[in-house]
Amino acid sequence: MRKVKTLGLLGTGVIGGGWAARALHFGIDVIAADVKPEMEEWIRGAVANAEPALARLTSAPLPPKGKLSFTTELKVMAQQADFIQENIPEQLPLKQRMLAEVSRHAAADVIIASSTSGLTPTDLQRDMAAPERFCVAHPFNPVYLLPLVELVGGQKTSQSTIDAAAKFFTYIGMHPLHVRREIPGHLTDRLQEALWREILHMVNDGIATTGELDESIIYGPGLRWAAMGTNLIYHLAGGESGMRHMLAQFGPCLKWPWTKLEAPELTEALIDRMVEGTQAQAAGRSIRELERLRDDYLVAIQQVLRQYNIGAGATLRSLEERLFKDASAGHAATIGDLGTPTRLPMRLLDAVVRPEWVDYNRHMSDFRYGQVFGDAMEPLFRQLGVDEAYRASGRMYYTVENHIRHLGEAKVGESLYVTAQLLEADNKRLHVFQRMFRGRDDQLIATADQMYLHVDTAAAKAAPADPQVRERVQQFARAQAALPRPAEAGRAVGLGKH
Amino acid sequence: MRKVKTLGLLGTGVIGGGWAARALHFGIDVIAADVKPEMEEWIRGAVANAEPALARLTSAPLPPKGKLSFTTELKVMAQQADFIQENIPEQLPLKQRMLAEVSRHAAADVIIASSTSGLTPTDLQRDMAAPERFCVAHPFNPVYLLPLVELVGGQKTSQSTIDAAAKFFTYIGMHPLHVRREIPGHLTDRLQEALWREILHMVNDGIATTGELDESIIYGPGLRWAAMGTNLIYHLAGGESGMRHMLAQFGPCLKWPWTKLEAPELTEALIDRMVEGTQAQAAGRSIRELERLRDDYLVAIQQVLRQYNIGAGATLRSLEERLFKDASAGHAATIGDLGTPTRLPMRLLDAVVRPEWVDYNRHMSDFRYGQVFGDAMEPLFRQLGVDEAYRASGRMYYTVENHIRHLGEAKVGESLYVTAQLLEADNKRLHVFQRMFRGRDDQLIATADQMYLHVDTAAAKAAPADPQVRERVQQFARAQAALPRPAEAGRAVGLGKH
Repeated sequence: MRKVKTLGLLGTGVIGGGWAARALHFGIDVIAADVKPEMEEWIRGAVANAEPALARLTSAPLPPKGKLSFTTELKVMAQQADFIQENIPEQLPLKQRMLAEVSRHAAADVIIASSTSGLTPTDLQRDMAAPERFCVAHPFNPVYLLPLVELVGGQKTSQSTIDAAAKFFTYIGMHPLHVRREIPGHLTDRLQEALWREILHMVNDGIATTGELDESIIYGPGLRWAAMGTNLIYHLAGGESGMRHMLAQFGPCLKWPWTKLEAPELTEALIDRMVEGTQAQAAGRSIRELERLRDDYLVAIQQVLRQYNIGAGATLRSLEERLFKDASAGHAATIGDLGTPTRLPMRLLDAVVRPEWVDYNRHMSDFRYGQVFGDAMEPLFRQLGVDEAYRASGRMYYTVENHIRHLGEAKVGESLYVTAQLLEADNKRLHVFQRMFRGRDDQLIATADQMYLHVDTAAAKAAPADPQVRERVQQFARAQAALPRPAEAGRAVGLGKH
Repeated sequence: MRKVKTLGLLGTGVIGGGWAARALHFGIDVIAADVKPEMEEWIRGAVANAEPALARLTSAPLPPKGKLSFTTELKVMAQQADFIQENIPEQLPLKQRMLAEVSRHAAADVIIASSTSGLTPTDLQRDMAAPERFCVAHPFNPVYLLPLVELVGGQKTSQSTIDAAAKFFTYIGMHPLHVRREIPGHLTDRLQEALWREILHMVNDGIATTGELDESIIYGPGLRWAAMGTNLIYHLAGGESGMRHMLAQFGPCLKWPWTKLEAPELTEALIDRMVEGTQAQAAGRSIRELERLRDDYLVAIQQVLRQYNIGAGATLRSLEERLFKDASAGHAATIGDLGTPTRLPMRLLDAVVRPEWVDYNRHMSDFRYGQVFGDAMEPLFRQLGVDEAYRASGRMYYTVENHIRHLGEAKVGESLYVTAQLLEADNKRLHVFQRMFRGRDDQLIATADQMYLHVDTAAAKAAPADPQVRERVQQFARAQAALPRPAEAGRAVGLGKH
C-alpha cells in the first residue's frame, strides 16, 4: 500500500472534523469533501477547537502540521488522497452509493475506510471498485483524543488492507482493534448499546434520572474502565482463583432480573473461554500484582480529576477541605506548635513517593522534590494564618526563589518527611530552609532554600502581610531562634564551589 | 442518629476488608465479626494490602488511624458498634437470618446496612428489630478507593436512616448515591450487568475474546466514563441541540440488532425525560464548555496512564517513542543545531500551561516550573547523545542543584518556551542556565540555574561521561562561547540580596 501523505475525508461533521484535527496534528495533509460549501468554515472551526487539547497530549517533537484543504467535488478529493475515510450519515443505501462512486475515482491502492458505528463492511463494499481495499474503521468521539479505532474487514477485504490501515492509524496515535468477525455494532457499540438501552428502560420505568444513572457509573465502575475492562476487573474480583471463582460466585445472578437482557447459559465451554481469555490478559501477572496496578491508576486518576473538580475528583476535594478544617480544629496534630521554643526544625509533612512520581530510573523525578517541598509549605502557611479565607482576600505569599540541592534518592513507595526552619523574615518576606528526609533511614536527600514574598494580587504588587500573620511569623522566628543556620543556606550554584 | 466512632462488620471477605481499610484510614475504629477465627489474620492482611494506595489518595492531614479488633461473636460486635455493615454471601435467607439476629443485639439507633449487590432492602429488613434503621449501602471494589456507595431504603426504612448513612459515608470519603426506587441490582449493577451479559453472549458466540472486548472499552468509552456518564456524553455528541438531536439521529439504531437487549419504545415522554435529565446535568453549561472539560480530563487521564504504561497510556508512550525517533532522524527540527556558533541561547522546548498545572490562583504552580525546565533538558540531552540507549547502559546526568527564580506568571493555556545556555562544563559536570519565556509577550518569567553531574549508576558514583558525549558538550560550549554570562547565574538566596 502507498505511503499516506494526504487523508481524504468523504463527509465532514463531528467525526470528520475529529479525523481532520488528529491527522493534521501528526503531520498528514487533509482534503475534505462535502457537497455543502459552508462546511469548509465548519471544519476549520472544528479543527481549531480541537487544537488546544490535542496540543497538550504529548510534548514529544511533532512533524510540521499538515495542511487542510476543502472541495465540494468528491472526485477532486478522491484523486488527491492516499487514504480515504468516509463519514456520511448512517444510511446503508447512501453509504453504498457514495462508497461506490468514490472507489471509481480513487486509484486501486488507496484504502477506503468507513467510520460507520454499526453497519457491516460486506454490505458497504458491495458495489465498490477494488473492494479488497475497503474496511470499516470506526473511531470514537472525540476522535482527536480517544485512541480506539475498530477495524473490520468484509468478505472481500484483503488482510493487507487491514494491516496497512492499522499502520496508518497507529502513525496518527491510535490503537487499532481488529474485529475479526462482522457483527452489527462491531464490539464497542454492542457493549455501549446494551448499557444505553438499560438506561432507557430505567428512565422509561421512572426508576432513576439520567443524572443519577451517570453518577452510578462515574464514581464507581467508570473509574476502573479507564484502564481495565470488565473481564480483567472481574478476574481480579475473583481473588486468587480469578475468573473461575467469580463465575462460580456470581453465575447464579445471571438468572436474576438484574437487567432486561437475558444471559446465555453458563456452560462449561463458556466458562473455559472466559477463564482462558482472562488468563491470557493477566499474562502471568498475579492477582496481587494486577491489584496493585489497578490501585495505582485509580489513585492517580482521582487526583487528576481533583484538579478539574469533576466526579470522583470533586468528592476528593470536599473530603480534603473537611480534613483540613478538622485538623485546624485540633483533631489531628500533624505538625508542631508554632510558638513553642524548639531546638529542632518544625516537621511539616509526611509523604510517600507515588508511582507516577518516578522516572525511567525508578527514582523520584527532580521536579517532584519541588512539589513535595511546596506541599510541605501548605500546613506551615495555614499555621501562619494564610488559609483559604486569607487567600480569597487577594493576599498570599508567592515563591520568588527556590534553590533545591539533591543529595540522595527516593524510590516508589518510600516514605519522606520534610522539616522547615525560618532563616529570616521581614514584613513582606520569608526566607525558609526546608530539608527532605527519607523515612526508612532518616537520610537527608534534598534541601530547599526558599524566598517567599507577600503580595497583594489585586494591586499586583508586594505588600506587607496582615499584622496577625506578621505576629505569627515572629512567634515562629522566636521559637526557632536557637537553631543553627544550615551550612547549605544562601549558597550559589557553580562549578568552583563543589 | 449517634456519632460513629466504631464500625461493626458482619462478615469479612474482600468487601469487608475494603470497608475496614477505608474506615480505619479515616480514623474510625473497626470491629469485625466472622465465625471463622482464621479471618482475623485475613482481614489484617487485607487492610495492610490496601494501605499503600490509600495512603497516597490525599496529603491532607488525617486523624489518628482507627483500631481494628476481631471477634467470632456477632453479639460482641453488635454491642460495640455505632454503625453495622453486613458483608456476608449473596443468599437472601442467610442474610435475612443474620440481619434479624444482629438487629436484636444492637441498640435501636445503630444503623445496620447491607453491602448486597442486588438484593432489595424490603426483603432484607423483613425480620429485623427496628427495621427503620436498615438500608442497603452497596460499595464497589476496591471499596477503599472507589467513592461510590448506593444507598437504598426499603418500605420500612426511615429517611433519617438514609440521611445519617449518607453523612457517615461522606465522612469516610465516599459519594453516597440515593437510589430512590428499589429494583433488583439497584442502578449500577443493572448497567454493569447489561454490559456483562452482552460480553458473555459475544464470547459464547465466538465473536471475540475477553481481551478484545476489554480493549473495546479501555481505549475508547472507558476513558470517557471516568468522569462523564453515557447520558452526558451523548448530550455532548448531539452538538448544540444536545440529547434531543442525538435521540433523533441515533433513535432508529434502537431497532437494529446492536445488542441482544431490546430497547423500550422511544416515546415523546421518554425523549422529554432524557432531554430534561441531561439539561439538568449540563446545569447551564454550554456544549462547548462541557466539551472543553471533557477534553481536559481525557488528556490528563491519558497522561496519568502513560506513567503506568497501561491502556491508552501505553499507546501514547509508543507514539512518543516514534515521534522522538522521527525527530532525531531529522523530520522535525524543533531545536537548534548543537555545533553552530550562535549569539543566542538554544531554544529547547515549546509548551502550553495545562489546566492541571495551575493552583488556586489560576497561575502555574511553582513546582511545574521545575517540570517544564526538566522537560526542556530532555531534547538537549538527546542532542548531547544521552538517549535511551545511553541511559540503559547505566550512565546519565543527575540534577544536583536547581535554583529557580520566579519573575512572572503563566496562566492556563498560555504558551511557554525555554532556552538554555551552557555556563561551564568539565568531564563530569554541566552548569546550565535556562530561561523560561511566556509566548504571548516574550516576557521572561523564570530562570533556572542548574548543575548536573554525570553518574555511573551501577558503580553508584560520579564518573566521566562518554568521550562522544564530552565531545558534543565541548561543541555546544564552543557554539555558545560568545554569549554573555547571565547576571542571575551563581547567585544565592537571601534577604540582603534582593
